Amino acid sequence: MNFPSKLLEEAVNEFSRLPGVGKKTALRLVLHLLKQDKSQVERFGNSIVQLRNGAVYCKDCHNLSDASLCQICSSSARDKSLLCVVEDMRDVIAIENTANYNGLYHVLGGIISPMEGIGPKDLTIDSLEERVKAGVVKEIILALPASMEGETTSFYVYRKLNSGSLIISIIARGLGVGDELEYADEVSLSRSLLQRTPFEKSFSVK
Amino acid sequence: MNFPSKLLEEAVNEFSRLPGVGKKTALRLVLHLLKQDKSQVERFGNSIVQLRNGAVYCKDCHNLSDASLCQICSSSARDKSLLCVVEDMRDVIAIENTANYNGLYHVLGGIISPMEGIGPKDLTIDSLEERVKAGVVKEIILALPASMEGETTSFYVYRKLNSGSLIISIIARGLGVGDELEYADEVSLSRSLLQRTPFEKSFSVK
Repeated sequence: MNFPSKLLEEAVNEFSRLPGVGKKTALRLVLHLLKQDKSQVERFGNSIVQLRNGAVYCKDCHNLSDASLCQICSSSARDKSLLCVVEDMRDVIAIENTANYNGLYHVLGGIISPMEGIGPKDLTIDSLEERVKAGVVKEIILALPASMEGETTSFYVYRKLNSGSLIISIIARGLGVGDELEYADEVSLSRSLLQRTPFEKSFSVK
Repeated sequence: MNFPSKLLEEAVNEFSRLPGVGKKTALRLVLHLLKQDKSQVERFGNSIVQLRNGAVYCKDCHNLSDASLCQICSSSARDKSLLCVVEDMRDVIAIENTANYNGLYHVLGGIISPMEGIGPKDLTIDSLEERVKAGVVKEIILALPASMEGETTSFYVYRKLNSGSLIISIIARGLGVGDELEYADEVSLSRSLLQRTPFEKSFSVK
């Protein structure tokens, strides 16, 4: 592409580094911003710089936070004996949106992936061990992806933390609510059958 | 969405104002940038602010530029008797990419659209008239969209500038190179037939 201005070219190059954004989309986004008020564009540019420079991570659960202890970890309404282990903060947002979980979280910051050179030491597994050792946690729920890497990580965490007293569970896999049997993939349907639930329990939400 | 941090929420809100970007995509983009180096994020944020604050438009063609006269208008290699009228700078980039046009441009900055409240006075049509009056321009090529608004604008410009000496042409519409007849829409195919070209001219590029 031949750009009429160096400044435009730089902005388009920066935007096209975003995941899923090519040169044409980047140009469209940049031209959209170019039509906005100066104050609006400054707010846009500053918002991301301020986030990057001011981001703090909770010392307990490693989620992004405004303070050294996040809102969830510092809330007295939360069940501190229950810990949900997730890959990243998007999973925390997804689970919080269900409004059906009242425990704390532990954000691993990734999953074990030899292909991408991510080992257990790159994750917050040591910190998870320490939290468990403190003795308050009674149950850990593993809510990691159902991929090869996710299951490897789940198994690694299970091996690390498995002791007599701690309950380690894993989120249920099966047919989504509203899914039809005939269109379901075989693996999900198999899991639905294997991990069937007693009828009287299936509608109650803990 | 419940965000774990105010700074994150602000950044996601800003990103979700971009066209075609929803909250989930915005979150994905912001988390991607959060993982980058501070210097990289600052470069990203500054690039758009600098463009917005430093943007200069060419006084002749009204394209985005680094100087008061853009590279194309100031080039001695360009045919100054030929003027291509386009809607916005993306069209200039598209035509420049063909490497098959050697004249100058005139960026209208939009098209006449009563629905959006855009009239001739909001566009650079007066400036176009002045450029034509200067007497250097021999031919004007209208390269505006084939929509109702685009054709209205083409007709308006034609009425404004039509005088004995000036040639006013409009870009050819028809089947795209490589398109198959059976899948073509009727309007394009009709235009292809109506605006048929003498065979010996059809492969030459001026």
